[in-house]
Amino acid sequence: MKNLLSMENVSNEEIEEILKRAAEFEAGAKPQLDREYLVANLFFEPSTRTKTSFETAERRVGATVIPFEAGFSSTLKGETLYDTVKTLESIGLDAVVIRHKKDAYYEELLEGINVSVINAGDGAGQHPSQSMLDLYTIFKEFGKFEGLNVTIAGDVSHSRVAKSDIIALQRLGANVNIVCPPQWQGEYDAHYDWDDLIETSDVIMLLRVQHERDAAFEGYSNESYHERYGLTKEREKRMKDGAIIMHPAPVNRGVEIDSSLVECDRSRIFKQVQNGVFVRMAIVENILKGRS
Amino acid sequence: MKNLLSMENVSNEEIEEILKRAAEFEAGAKPQLDREYLVANLFFEPSTRTKTSFETAERRVGATVIPFEAGFSSTLKGETLYDTVKTLESIGLDAVVIRHKKDAYYEELLEGINVSVINAGDGAGQHPSQSMLDLYTIFKEFGKFEGLNVTIAGDVSHSRVAKSDIIALQRLGANVNIVCPPQWQGEYDAHYDWDDLIETSDVIMLLRVQHERDAAFEGYSNESYHERYGLTKEREKRMKDGAIIMHPAPVNRGVEIDSSLVECDRSRIFKQVQNGVFVRMAIVENILKGRS
Amino acid sequence: MKNLLSMENVSNEEIEEILKRAAEFEAGAKPQLDREYLVANLFFEPSTRTKTSFETAERRVGATVIPFEAGFSSTLKGETLYDTVKTLESIGLDAVVIRHKKDAYYEELLEGINVSVINAGDGAGQHPSQSMLDLYTIFKEFGKFEGLNVTIAGDVSHSRVAKSDIIALQRLGANVNIVCPPQWQGEYDAHYDWDDLIETSDVIMLLRVQHERDAAFEGYSNESYHERYGLTKEREKRMKDGAIIMHPAPVNRGVEIDSSLVECDRSRIFKQVQNGVFVRMAIVENILKGRS
Repeated sequence: MKNLLSMENVSNEEIEEILKRAAEFEAGAKPQLDREYLVANLFFEPSTRTKTSFETAERRVGATVIPFEAGFSSTLKGETLYDTVKTLESIGLDAVVIRHKKDAYYEELLEGINVSVINAGDGAGQHPSQSMLDLYTIFKEFGKFEGLNVTIAGDVSHSRVAKSDIIALQRLGANVNIVCPPQWQGEYDAHYDWDDLIETSDVIMLLRVQHERDAAFEGYSNESYHERYGLTKEREKRMKDGAIIMHPAPVNRGVEIDSSLVECDRSRIFKQVQNGVFVRMAIVENILKGRS
Repeated sequence: MKNLLSMENVSNEEIEEILKRAAEFEAGAKPQLDREYLVANLFFEPSTRTKTSFETAERRVGATVIPFEAGFSSTLKGETLYDTVKTLESIGLDAVVIRHKKDAYYEELLEGINVSVINAGDGAGQHPSQSMLDLYTIFKEFGKFEGLNVTIAGDVSHSRVAKSDIIALQRLGANVNIVCPPQWQGEYDAHYDWDDLIETSDVIMLLRVQHERDAAFEGYSNESYHERYGLTKEREKRMKDGAIIMHPAPVNRGVEIDSSLVECDRSRIFKQVQNGVFVRMAIVENILKGRS
Repeated sequence: MKNLLSMENVSNEEIEEILKRAAEFEAGAKPQLDREYLVANLFFEPSTRTKTSFETAERRVGATVIPFEAGFSSTLKGETLYDTVKTLESIGLDAVVIRHKKDAYYEELLEGINVSVINAGDGAGQHPSQSMLDLYTIFKEFGKFEGLNVTIAGDVSHSRVAKSDIIALQRLGANVNIVCPPQWQGEYDAHYDWDDLIETSDVIMLLRVQHERDAAFEGYSNESYHERYGLTKEREKRMKDGAIIMHPAPVNRGVEIDSSLVECDRSRIFKQVQNGVFVRMAIVENILKGRS
C-alpha cells in the first residue's frame, strides 16, 4: 500500500496480509526495513491510544520518529494542510500519520504529494487502523468473520470506527446490526432497542458517547442512556457463551458500559489496545517497505 | 522498587542504594539494562527541569521514551487516569512518570495496574525524585545527614518538595527547622522569623513562592516577603562557613532569594539540577531492572 | 562557531564553510561527531518547517534530541529565559535551538551560559539558519552572489528573514532591492512599485504577509495587496530566463504569490525546505564539533 486512507480502498487480500503480519509480530518476528525511514504523527485532535500506539509501533519497526506538535504549528498561521504535508515531504519524511477533524481531509493530498499518508481518523469519516485492530481482535477470537453476528451500539452517525468496521465486516461476511436512538443511525438501518441482539451476538461493540460532539445526546441523561442502550450488568449476563465485548475507547464508564464490565472476562477492551500495536507495526512496515 | 510514589514508603536502605548508584553514574558507570524498556512521561502540570531531567535520564540508561502530550490527550475527553495508564500498559509500556495536580492521584493506580509508576509530583503531596536529589546534594557536601541543621524557608503547606524532604531528612537524623508566615506552616511547627537560624544552619533551602497557588501571599509584596523571609544579601553574609543554599527552582529572583545569590559560591541550585539526572538514572534503572 | 545568533556575527568564511559542508551532506557525506551530544529545541512561537527541519537535521548528524514543550514549561511560572537555559545546561545539554518573540532575546544568554545557542528566530530580529539556507539555494542555482540582482518583496520591517538575508547578501556582493508599501520599509530604501524589478531580478523573494502581526496591513485587502505587491501570474511571465522565486513560507496563497506559482518551474519554495535540512546539519555539526 502507498497510503491507508479508508477501508473502502483496502481489499480483503490486503486486510488478510496485515492481520497475518500482525500475528507474526505478536509472535516475536523482527521487522524488515532496509534503510532509515522518517515518519511523523500529525494529530490535530487529542488522542492517547492511537497516537501512543503509532509512536510505539513506528519505533518497534525501526523507523525514526520526528516530533510534530500539531497544536503549535504553522497551521496556526493559516498554512494549508497540503503545504504542511508538502513541507514535511521536502524535509525528507517518508510517511505521515494524520488525525484531522475535517472529513476526508486527505482528498487534498491525493495529487502532488509523494509522502505516504496513514489516516488515523478524519472527522466523522474513517479510522482504518482502528478497524484493522478490531478485525485482528475478532479473528484471533473466532478464526473467521463469515457468519459472525456483530452488534454495534451507539452513535454510528459520528463514529469513524463504526463506519470503517461496517464496510470491512460486511465485506468479510459478518452480519452487522446496529442499536441506537433514531437520531444517531445516520445512513444505516438500526434497532431502537436491544431486542434479542444481546442473546444472539458473538461480538458486542460499544461506541463512546461523544459528549463533546453529540448535541443529539440532549434527550438522554447518562443514566437513561445506560439503561436503554448501554451494556448493563444485567444485559452482560444474557450474552451467549464465548461472546465478547469491544469498545474503541476512551470509555465513559457507567454510560455506554457498566464500569465493572470494562475489565470483565468477556471484555477485550484493553486487549484491543494491545493488538493495536502489532497491527500498526504491520501497517507501518507495509507502507514503508513499499517505498524502498 | 516497583513504584516510587512517596518518601513515606522508601526505606533508608533504598535511599542509600539510589544515592550510591547515582554516584556511580556521576563517576561514569554504564547502565545495566538487559532488554528494551518503554517509558513515558505524563506531565499534567507544566515543568521544565523535572520533565527534561527524566527525559534525559531515561535516554541515558537506554530506555525508549514514547512521547505523551498530557495537554492534548484523551483525558480531555474525560478518560480516567486509571484508564489512561492501563491503556499505556496495554500498549507495552514498562513505566510511566506522572505529575498531576491531584493529591495522591496514584492511589487509584495501586490496584489493577502492572506498569511501574514514578511520581514526579502529586498536587501538594510528594515529590520523591526531587527529594532524592536533594539528599544526594546534601550527602555529597557533608558526607552524612545525622546532626545536620537544615532550614526550610517558605510555603511548606503547599510544597511537595518540603514534605518529601522533611520525612526523609528527619528519618536520616537531620534537624529540620521551618521559617515561614503562620498561614504557610501547615501541619508543621515553624519559626515566624529567621531568629538565629541563619547562623546555625548547614543547609538553607528556599521554597518558591507559588504565585499561581498562594492566595495567602496577599499579605506580602515581593519586597516585604523578601525582607522578612527571603535570603537577602545581608543574611547570606551571616551564614556559617561551609553552609550551602538550595532551592528546588524555578526561582523567583528577588523574592525568596536575592538575584545575585542564585549563582554565588554557597549556592547549589544549578548543582541540584545536575545531580538530578544521576539520581533519576538510578531511580529509572532500579525500577526497570526490577521488572526483568 | 560557539553560537549562531545573527548574520551580523557570521563571517563570509564561516558562511562558505557551512555551504560547503551542506553540499557534502546533500551528496551523502557522513556526519563526524565523536561522542553523544544532547540538544533541545525551544520554540516559544509556533513553527512547522524550522522546528521539524532542526529536529530532522539533529537526528541525521547523530545528536540525541531531548523534547521540550515550550508552551508547557516553567516559563509559565515566570522563570527567566536565562534560568531555563542554565537549567538545561546543568542537565547536560550541549546546544539549544531557540525561537522567541523577543528581539535579541539571546543577549541575556551571552554571559554565564556555556551551552551553545542557535537562534531560530528572535522577534523581528534575525533568522540566521533560514538565511544560510537561502544563500545555499541561491548559490546552488547561480554559483555566485557577486552582481546578482535579488529583490525582496513584502514587510521587511517585521521580517527577520529579510534582515538576515540583506546583511549577508550585500556583504557577499549581491544587489538587493526592496519592494513594499512605505509603512513596511523600516530602515531600508524601498521601491513602492515593482517598476522594472520583475524584468531585471535573478531572484525574487516574497515575504509572508504576517496577518497576525501586521496592523499596517489594514490599508490593503488580500486582493489589492496581491495586485500591487504580489507575484501575479502576469508578473511571473515577465521574469527573465533562469530567474527564480523564493519564499521562506508558510505561504499565503493568493496574497504574496498566486497559488498556481507555488510549485511552478521557477519556484524554489519547497527546494528551500529541502536544502534547509542539509544546511542545518552543517550548522549543528559545526557547533557541536566545536565543543568536543
